[in-house]
Amino acid sequence: MGKQKALMDKLVRTFQIRHMLLRQALAECLGTLILMMFSCGEVAQLVLSGGSHGMFLTINFAFGFAATLGILVSGQVSGGHLNPTVTFPLCILGREPWRKFPVFFLFQTLGAFLGSGIIFGMYSGEGNLEMFYDDKCPNNNNNNSFSSCHNATAGIFATYPSKHLTLVNGFFDQMIGMAALIMCILAIVDPYNNPIHRGLEAFTVGFVVLVIGLSMGFNPARDLGPRIFTALAGWGSEVFTAYSYWFFVPIFAPFIGVVVGMTVYQLMVGYHVEGEARENREEEEKEDGHPLL
Amino acid sequence: MGKQKALMDKLVRTFQIRHMLLRQALAECLGTLILMMFSCGEVAQLVLSGGSHGMFLTINFAFGFAATLGILVSGQVSGGHLNPTVTFPLCILGREPWRKFPVFFLFQTLGAFLGSGIIFGMYSGEGNLEMFYDDKCPNNNNNNSFSSCHNATAGIFATYPSKHLTLVNGFFDQMIGMAALIMCILAIVDPYNNPIHRGLEAFTVGFVVLVIGLSMGFNPARDLGPRIFTALAGWGSEVFTAYSYWFFVPIFAPFIGVVVGMTVYQLMVGYHVEGEARENREEEEKEDGHPLL
Amino acid sequence: MGKQKALMDKLVRTFQIRHMLLRQALAECLGTLILMMFSCGEVAQLVLSGGSHGMFLTINFAFGFAATLGILVSGQVSGGHLNPTVTFPLCILGREPWRKFPVFFLFQTLGAFLGSGIIFGMYSGEGNLEMFYDDKCPNNNNNNSFSSCHNATAGIFATYPSKHLTLVNGFFDQMIGMAALIMCILAIVDPYNNPIHRGLEAFTVGFVVLVIGLSMGFNPARDLGPRIFTALAGWGSEVFTAYSYWFFVPIFAPFIGVVVGMTVYQLMVGYHVEGEARENREEEEKEDGHPLL
Amino acid sequence: MGKQKALMDKLVRTFQIRHMLLRQALAECLGTLILMMFSCGEVAQLVLSGGSHGMFLTINFAFGFAATLGILVSGQVSGGHLNPTVTFPLCILGREPWRKFPVFFLFQTLGAFLGSGIIFGMYSGEGNLEMFYDDKCPNNNNNNSFSSCHNATAGIFATYPSKHLTLVNGFFDQMIGMAALIMCILAIVDPYNNPIHRGLEAFTVGFVVLVIGLSMGFNPARDLGPRIFTALAGWGSEVFTAYSYWFFVPIFAPFIGVVVGMTVYQLMVGYHVEGEARENREEEEKEDGHPLL
Repeated sequence: MGKQKALMDKLVRTFQIRHMLLRQALAECLGTLILMMFSCGEVAQLVLSGGSHGMFLTINFAFGFAATLGILVSGQVSGGHLNPTVTFPLCILGREPWRKFPVFFLFQTLGAFLGSGIIFGMYSGEGNLEMFYDDKCPNNNNNNSFSSCHNATAGIFATYPSKHLTLVNGFFDQMIGMAALIMCILAIVDPYNNPIHRGLEAFTVGFVVLVIGLSMGFNPARDLGPRIFTALAGWGSEVFTAYSYWFFVPIFAPFIGVVVGMTVYQLMVGYHVEGEARENREEEEKEDGHPLL
Repeated sequence: MGKQKALMDKLVRTFQIRHMLLRQALAECLGTLILMMFSCGEVAQLVLSGGSHGMFLTINFAFGFAATLGILVSGQVSGGHLNPTVTFPLCILGREPWRKFPVFFLFQTLGAFLGSGIIFGMYSGEGNLEMFYDDKCPNNNNNNSFSSCHNATAGIFATYPSKHLTLVNGFFDQMIGMAALIMCILAIVDPYNNPIHRGLEAFTVGFVVLVIGLSMGFNPARDLGPRIFTALAGWGSEVFTAYSYWFFVPIFAPFIGVVVGMTVYQLMVGYHVEGEARENREEEEKEDGHPLL
Repeated sequence: MGKQKALMDKLVRTFQIRHMLLRQALAECLGTLILMMFSCGEVAQLVLSGGSHGMFLTINFAFGFAATLGILVSGQVSGGHLNPTVTFPLCILGREPWRKFPVFFLFQTLGAFLGSGIIFGMYSGEGNLEMFYDDKCPNNNNNNSFSSCHNATAGIFATYPSKHLTLVNGFFDQMIGMAALIMCILAIVDPYNNPIHRGLEAFTVGFVVLVIGLSMGFNPARDLGPRIFTALAGWGSEVFTAYSYWFFVPIFAPFIGVVVGMTVYQLMVGYHVEGEARENREEEEKEDGHPLL
Repeated sequence: MGKQKALMDKLVRTFQIRHMLLRQALAECLGTLILMMFSCGEVAQLVLSGGSHGMFLTINFAFGFAATLGILVSGQVSGGHLNPTVTFPLCILGREPWRKFPVFFLFQTLGAFLGSGIIFGMYSGEGNLEMFYDDKCPNNNNNNSFSSCHNATAGIFATYPSKHLTLVNGFFDQMIGMAALIMCILAIVDPYNNPIHRGLEAFTVGFVVLVIGLSMGFNPARDLGPRIFTALAGWGSEVFTAYSYWFFVPIFAPFIGVVVGMTVYQLMVGYHVEGEARENREEEEKEDGHPLL
C-alpha cells in the first residue's frame, strides 16, 4: 500500500489547482452539471414517455433533489450557488466579491451545457433521437416549426412559455417566483439570522426549490447553457427567436425578482438582525476597553 | 469594495428598527405572507386547473412546506408563530408576554392579507380573473350567489364548510384538530421536554402541519386576512355572512381546541417534566450552599 | 405577570406526578393516543370516502408520521416505545426493568383505546355513524355478519386478515415483518452502535415504520385497544371470534418476530460492538491503575 | 436482574467476534440483506399485484429507504457500503485496504442471496408460488421461455434489459448512472469535503439513491446474489444466458462507471480540497517548529 499511497500523493500534487477562483468555478461547473443531469433527465423521461400527465409532483421532487445533490458536491468549495441569481444578491450585499459573478455565471452555464449534452447522448442512444427532432408525437397536426411537439422536446432542456401567457405575464411570473425564492435563500444563508444547522443547508435549499416548484427559467445559467446546446444540436436558432425572443425573459426577469426579494427581506428582517449584531459587537469591544470613540 | 461596504453600512443604520416588538411583528408579517403565498398558490393552482381530484396529498405537502419556509424566515427573530393560536397558549403558560398576542395577531392577519393579494394578482394577470368572479366552472347549474363554483374560488383564500357539515360539527372538527396540533407543537417547543435539535424545529413544525393536513381554518390569522381581502376584491360581504356566519368558526374553534390540547398535554407530560426540572434546580442550589429556606 | 407566574407555579406543584413509572406510563398513553388518532384517522378517511384505491402510499406515510409525532411527545419521558414489542426486547437485553413491560402494555392499550374513541366520535358526528354499523357500502350482497363492508369499517380500528390468507400465513407474515422492524429499531437505539443523532431518533423510527409499511397488527397494543373499543361500540364479540380467533395473531406473532429479529441482530452486529466497548472500558480502567485482576 | 445481567454478559462473551474484518463482513451481509428485503419486497408487491403502473415513485422511494436502513444497521461497524462499487473506489483512493474488497463483495452477495430467499419464501407461502414459475399473467401469449411474464417475476430479484435496449446501450446507461451516483457518494464521504453531519450520512446516501432512481443493476452484489438464487429456485440457467449473457452488464458496467465518476470528481473537486488540507497541515507543522525540510 506504500506504493499506492505514493502514487496517490503524486496525483494530488500534479492535478491540484491552487488558484482559488478557478477551483470554485470548477466546483460550480460540476454542481450545475449534476443539477442539470438529474432535473433534465426527469423531464426527458416524462416527455419522451409520451407525455403522461400527473407527474408534476415527480418533476418538482426531481428539481429539489437535483439542487440538493449539486450543492452537496460543490458547497464546501464554492458555496454551491449553481445559479447566477444567487451569486448576484450576495455580491450586492458585499458578501462575495463582484469578480466572482461573471466567472460563476460562465462556469454555471458551461456546466448546464455539458449536463444537457450528457442527457441528450443518453436518450439519443436509445433510439429516441428522432423524437428529439421530428414531430411524430400525438396531436401534432400543424407545420409551424416550433409547435407543440417540437416545443416539448426542446422544452426538456430550456423553458418556453405556456400557452395563453403573454411575454409580460411570463416576465412577472418569473419575477415574483424568484423574489419568493431569494427571500427564503437569504434567510437560510444570512450570517446573522441562521436558523439552519450548517450541514443541513444543502437540504434546506433543495427543499425551498422543491416547494417553489421552480420552472427551469428561474436559473439563467440553467436556461442559457442548454438553450445554446439545443441550438447547436439541431433545433436551430429558433430556440432564441421563438415566442418573440422569449429567451430574454428567463435571463433577466429572475435578476429583477432577486432585487425585489432581497430588498423586502432586508427591510423586514435582514437589516435589523445585522444592525443588532453589530451593536452587540461594538458593545463588547467597548467593555473590553478598546478605545472605540 | 470599500465604497460598497460604506453604502451597505449606511443602509443598515438607516433602516434598522430598534424596537424589538415591532421588529418581531414585521418578521411575523413576512413569515405569514410567505406561508400564505405558497399554501394559497397551491390551492389556486388546483382549483383553477379545473378541480382535478387526487391532489389532496400535494395540498397537504404544500401547507406543511409553506409553514416550514415561513418559520425559517421569521423564526430567529420572532419565534415563527405565524398563527395566533400558537402565540395564545405560550402567553397562557407565561412563556411570552401578553402584549405580544394582539400585535402578532394583527401583523399575522396583515401578512396573510398581503399574501392573498399577491396570489390574486399573479393569477388574475393570466386571464383567470373572470374565473375568480363569475360561474363558468363545470356543474354550476344554480343561481345562488355562494354556490359550488363561487365557493371554490373564494375557498382558495379562506375556509368554507364542506357539504353535509353543520355549524356544530364543523366547530368540533376544528377544535379537535387544533387540540391535536397544539399538543405536538407544545411538545416540540417545551423547554423542559425538547427532543428536537434547535435547527430542526422549523422542519418538525412543518412536518406536524403536514401530518394533520390542517384545513386553512386552523389558523385564525390565515383565515381572517384573506377573507377580508376577498370581501374587498369582489366577492362582497357574503364571505362573512355565508353558511350562517361560518366565519366565526375558524376564528374561535381553534382557540378553544388550543386550550383543550394544552391542558391535556400539561396534565399528562408538561407539569411533570417542568416540576422535575425545578426540583433538580433547587437541589443543585441547596448543594451549592445557597440558603434557600 | 407576577400573579400569572405564581398561578402557573401552583398548577405545576398541584399536578406534578413524582412517581416516575406512572409518569412514563402516562406519556406512553398520550403517545399511543396520538399515534392512534393520526394513523386511524387516515384509514377512516380512506374507507369512509368509499374505498378509493391508490392511497396506499398515503396510509404508509400516515403510519410513519403518526409514529414520529407520538415519539416526539413521549420520547423524553418514557423513551417513546408506543408498542409492547419494542419494550419487550429492551427488557430481555436488560436495558429496561421487567416491571415496565406490563405497565407500558396496559397504558399503551389504553391510549389506543382512547384514540380510537376520539376518531369514532369525530366521524360518527358527521352523519357517517350508520356507515360504521350497517352494510350500505357497494358490493355488499351477503348477510354474513362480518363480511366485506362490516369488516372494512371494523378494519379502520383493528386488523383482520386479507382474503386468501390462512391463519398460519398471516402469522408468518407478521413475524417476519416484525423481525425486520426490530432489527432496524435495535440498531437505531443500540447504545454501542448509535449512528443517529439523538434528536433525530423520532424521525428515524417513524421513517422505519414508513418503509416497512407496517400493518396495524405489528403493534399488539395498537391492535388490542381499538379491538376492545369496537367490541363495546357496537360490532360485538365477533371482532374477537371472527376468522377463527384471528385476534390472537396480531398479539402473539409480533412478539415471536421480535425475538427472532433481536437474536439475528445481536449475533451479527450487537454482541460484537458491545463486547468491544466493554473491552475498551476495561483497558482504560487498567491503564488508569485500577486493579482489575 | 443480577442473574439476567450475568446471563447477558455471558452471551456477549460467547458470541463476540474479535476478528475485525469478519465482523465488518457480517455487518455488510446483514445490511445488504435488509437492503434486499425492503427493495425487493416492494418490487414483488408491485409485480404480483398485477403490474399496476404509476407506482414508479413508490419503487424509487423503496430503494432509497432500503439503502438508508441497511446503512443504519451496518454503518458504524463496516461503513455501510452494501455495494462493491462503493468499496472499489475507496480502495483505489487508498482509504480502505484492498483485502476488504473481495471479502465485502462475497458477503454483500451472500446478504442479497439470503434476502431474496426470504422474500421468495414470504410470497410463495401466500399461494403466489405458481405466479413465480408459470406464465398465467395477462398478455402472455408466446411460448418463449423468458418472455414478458417470466421476465417480470425473475425481474423482481435481478435486472433484465428493457425492450428496445441493445447490450451496448444498456452498458452505457448503467455506466453513466453509476458515474453520477459515485460522484455524489464521494462528495458525501470525502474526509476533506464533508458537508454532511456524520449522523445524516445514512439519510443522504439513501437520498442520493432515491434521486438517481437506480435500477437494481447499479449494485453488482444486489444483482448477482438474487440471480444465483433465482437460478437455484426454479428459473434455471436462463437467468444467466438470457439476452445474450446480459448478466455481465450489471456486474461490469458499474465498475467502469465508478472509475469515470471518481476521476471526474477528483479532478474537479477532490484533489484540490485534499491538496489544500495537506498544505495547511504542513504549514502548521512548520510553524510548530517541526523540521520538515
